[in-house]
Amino acid sequence: MIKDGDRVLLYGEDGTKFLVRVEAGKKKGTHLGVVEFDKIIGKNYGDIITIGKTSKSYYLLQPTYIDDIFSMKRKTQIVYPKDSSYIVMKLDIKPGSRVIDTGVGSGAMCAAMARLVGEEGKVYAYERREDFYKLATQNLTEWGLVNRVELKLRDIAFGFDETNVDALLLDVPDPENYIQVCWEALAGGGRIGVICPTVNQVSMVLEKMYELPFIDVEVWESLMRQFKPYPNRLRPVDRMVAHTTYMIFARKVNALAKGKAETKGQPPTT
Amino acid sequence: MIKDGDRVLLYGEDGTKFLVRVEAGKKKGTHLGVVEFDKIIGKNYGDIITIGKTSKSYYLLQPTYIDDIFSMKRKTQIVYPKDSSYIVMKLDIKPGSRVIDTGVGSGAMCAAMARLVGEEGKVYAYERREDFYKLATQNLTEWGLVNRVELKLRDIAFGFDETNVDALLLDVPDPENYIQVCWEALAGGGRIGVICPTVNQVSMVLEKMYELPFIDVEVWESLMRQFKPYPNRLRPVDRMVAHTTYMIFARKVNALAKGKAETKGQPPTT
Amino acid sequence: MIKDGDRVLLYGEDGTKFLVRVEAGKKKGTHLGVVEFDKIIGKNYGDIITIGKTSKSYYLLQPTYIDDIFSMKRKTQIVYPKDSSYIVMKLDIKPGSRVIDTGVGSGAMCAAMARLVGEEGKVYAYERREDFYKLATQNLTEWGLVNRVELKLRDIAFGFDETNVDALLLDVPDPENYIQVCWEALAGGGRIGVICPTVNQVSMVLEKMYELPFIDVEVWESLMRQFKPYPNRLRPVDRMVAHTTYMIFARKVNALAKGKAETKGQPPTT
Amino acid sequence: MIKDGDRVLLYGEDGTKFLVRVEAGKKKGTHLGVVEFDKIIGKNYGDIITIGKTSKSYYLLQPTYIDDIFSMKRKTQIVYPKDSSYIVMKLDIKPGSRVIDTGVGSGAMCAAMARLVGEEGKVYAYERREDFYKLATQNLTEWGLVNRVELKLRDIAFGFDETNVDALLLDVPDPENYIQVCWEALAGGGRIGVICPTVNQVSMVLEKMYELPFIDVEVWESLMRQFKPYPNRLRPVDRMVAHTTYMIFARKVNALAKGKAETKGQPPTT
Repeated sequence: MIKDGDRVLLYGEDGTKFLVRVEAGKKKGTHLGVVEFDKIIGKNYGDIITIGKTSKSYYLLQPTYIDDIFSMKRKTQIVYPKDSSYIVMKLDIKPGSRVIDTGVGSGAMCAAMARLVGEEGKVYAYERREDFYKLATQNLTEWGLVNRVELKLRDIAFGFDETNVDALLLDVPDPENYIQVCWEALAGGGRIGVICPTVNQVSMVLEKMYELPFIDVEVWESLMRQFKPYPNRLRPVDRMVAHTTYMIFARKVNALAKGKAETKGQPPTT
Repeated sequence: MIKDGDRVLLYGEDGTKFLVRVEAGKKKGTHLGVVEFDKIIGKNYGDIITIGKTSKSYYLLQPTYIDDIFSMKRKTQIVYPKDSSYIVMKLDIKPGSRVIDTGVGSGAMCAAMARLVGEEGKVYAYERREDFYKLATQNLTEWGLVNRVELKLRDIAFGFDETNVDALLLDVPDPENYIQVCWEALAGGGRIGVICPTVNQVSMVLEKMYELPFIDVEVWESLMRQFKPYPNRLRPVDRMVAHTTYMIFARKVNALAKGKAETKGQPPTT
Repeated sequence: MIKDGDRVLLYGEDGTKFLVRVEAGKKKGTHLGVVEFDKIIGKNYGDIITIGKTSKSYYLLQPTYIDDIFSMKRKTQIVYPKDSSYIVMKLDIKPGSRVIDTGVGSGAMCAAMARLVGEEGKVYAYERREDFYKLATQNLTEWGLVNRVELKLRDIAFGFDETNVDALLLDVPDPENYIQVCWEALAGGGRIGVICPTVNQVSMVLEKMYELPFIDVEVWESLMRQFKPYPNRLRPVDRMVAHTTYMIFARKVNALAKGKAETKGQPPTT
Repeated sequence: MIKDGDRVLLYGEDGTKFLVRVEAGKKKGTHLGVVEFDKIIGKNYGDIITIGKTSKSYYLLQPTYIDDIFSMKRKTQIVYPKDSSYIVMKLDIKPGSRVIDTGVGSGAMCAAMARLVGEEGKVYAYERREDFYKLATQNLTEWGLVNRVELKLRDIAFGFDETNVDALLLDVPDPENYIQVCWEALAGGGRIGVICPTVNQVSMVLEKMYELPFIDVEVWESLMRQFKPYPNRLRPVDRMVAHTTYMIFARKVNALAKGKAETKGQPPTT
């Protein structure tokens, strides 16, 4: 049952969505009419409310992670679900994982990891810009995830406090400059993911990686395409996201095999 | 430190991978030479071992979920990481979730969910073929996830035992026949995902969904492309997976808005 | 040298494009200023003109086919270059080809074929709507291609006048109803292309094709992605066309091999 | 009617294809049996022949351009139809065009252009390796296109003989070194296409282009996906070509607009 203070996704009969925190006695104006929160309290998720004197209605839904990030206040480009879902799987993040996120930006990727590490895991999150740091803190608090995150207002040029982390996500404008400090923070066998919007960044990051004991280096991009869900006229939508980022993944090892020093700057043969 | 009985991914210097369970006194033959497990015990993840009298070496890594499913015994087509990662995010699976998986097949998707629901969540897994049921049980046991899964050898034509589940994944040859029982098992606002390799199945499932109180119906497909990770000759690989499955997602509501009964079989306008 | 009456693509220094027919004494207003055609006459393609008293300038270019179709008057969805280029190659259209185009719509595909068949080939173009017929006639006249096209205001339900054509493009709302008349018009070994925006149409057309002596049946879709052409920040554009149409191709044979009658409605084994 | 000396595509009932030149009295062995050419002479395209004492049969088809290039003798990677079709459209090649092709390789792109320029156009084709030059000559002769092509065994480091060509295709291992000589050969407004398999080459070519009077610079890549053509189980194929090449297109102008000198090395704003 929905209670005062709960977060609810209002899903309009026209497909529009509003994510609200229900407050007794308050209301929210929408293009379909005014939603009185008192009509929501006591209802169940999956129920419907009609608003004002009209017959317009909203469904009441639990917000998912994807609802959260597309409704949040943001000052930065976010990592899209098509990419973030693959990243958390490649980084093998799960209950109990200890992971680093940097830079935090608006907090979307931090949340993607915090929701998976559970109460027994931890996300160490580094952000050097104070406005982003505050915004991310605010967003993570709103999502009830802030207790799983140790947020630090810090430039990673000075390295990370943690060592032996299971995984690390690097999402900064100049990732090629931080591959060494990332290697130091990771546990042996630990996994790194790097966000690179341009091919030039990919090349630069790869060069740095091959100078260090990283193996299993992979570069991926994801194209997700949605369909118009009409059973008798089924077809993809007209336009789609063409590009967000390239994703680089690798695993730290404690040292490279003998003879691999000579192949520095060169990927493993395959 | 790696102990007797631990699972280790042997990552060869030539990029080949073997997932083994280390047993004191035992060994494994590979194309690079014989790996003696006693040389592994006491080492750390990220360390390297050389084998036999050669200079060939293997890195010792923690197996990730993706390593697990590509190394497992399987009798069925598995859901690929490009899809399974997106599915668990769209279904919003996280620590504490109660979810249904059906059919289980070799257990790959079941594991993808079980690893995320944590100790406090549960996966109810239905499989009607005994050979698959046994294989999935074996795989989930191997992965240490079987205690989070309630495996049932059962045809879902007779419905599910559970109600009010947070999410449900439907991966059977004739999904269009089970949309009603899925709706019954879901909580209000609960999320369903359906695996449909062909467009004809997509159309049939959509038709069934529009006859029931489902909203936010979406159809997606994922194309992931890998790159040859050469910094100075960066380019995508020559060939890629062109198709695995379409994915349908929707959310259960308790009833449709008034007047929507007339639009049965038709998707919401957008 | 550009003469009175020539067609010129004005390519603005800001990347905007206007396709004009130069007329002595006339002018064209643009957001960069007024272009006086007398300043163009006598210039060469590749030259630049500055306009008004400003320093704004336009490059003078020969219009290509792609410039033509994106500048033309149109009342219909056009076949995009990503598809039309592949279609004319799969249909093997070249100087001397005799081909049928139906329906003509605004004339874009008709022009794509007419420019390739040359003076020695011919396009027989069927359109049942008078407004499209007039528009296509006008566009083909503007492009100087109308003499290579025999335009007919006619519903193809009554079949085609021609037989033994080398290739045929079928682009109508219900292509599944005309596969028989297409077969009749084609030469032995002749190639057919069918435009199908939805998967449902693809299925219906395939079913009809397998009832007739067609072989080498293929279904394709094309995804073209453009890049932001910045050498140091190279990356794909943010958004792209997700879908225009599926394309079906096949070749007419005079009769099917013995025993193939039984596989009616089923594709050849591969 | 098929005559002695004609080229015929044998399309087996099992979907296999053999491109042959029919010679009276000769035969060709295939996995379906021996094809006697005398049984083909006098037949029509679209007809069927049965072979040996079996009931196995071959359809007799006219070879298309795509049949030609996939059957030819080749020593080089060819430009795939998904790319070559788009290139000839972007370069606006049509009857009467005068175009340059370099390097020629096995002659596939040269043929793609030669078949479109017709008898009134011309392809000037430069190749510096003698073995490729001979092979391309042989292939173009086989296809009946050699009279439309002026083949030159020459390194383009010394520039081209021609000026004022309508279009030019640059397909060499180090395209960034030849952008200047390409500019010189093109007519004002002429179109250039560059084949670049790696992103690094794309960046280098773009840099060179921005140092010269080129406008309308575009970078594209093409992903084409085929479907399994089963009406009731319609779905894409399992695997597809992930990458062949990036394609760069631009248009030569005689000089850049005033003030554009300062933006050297930078793409035009968009």
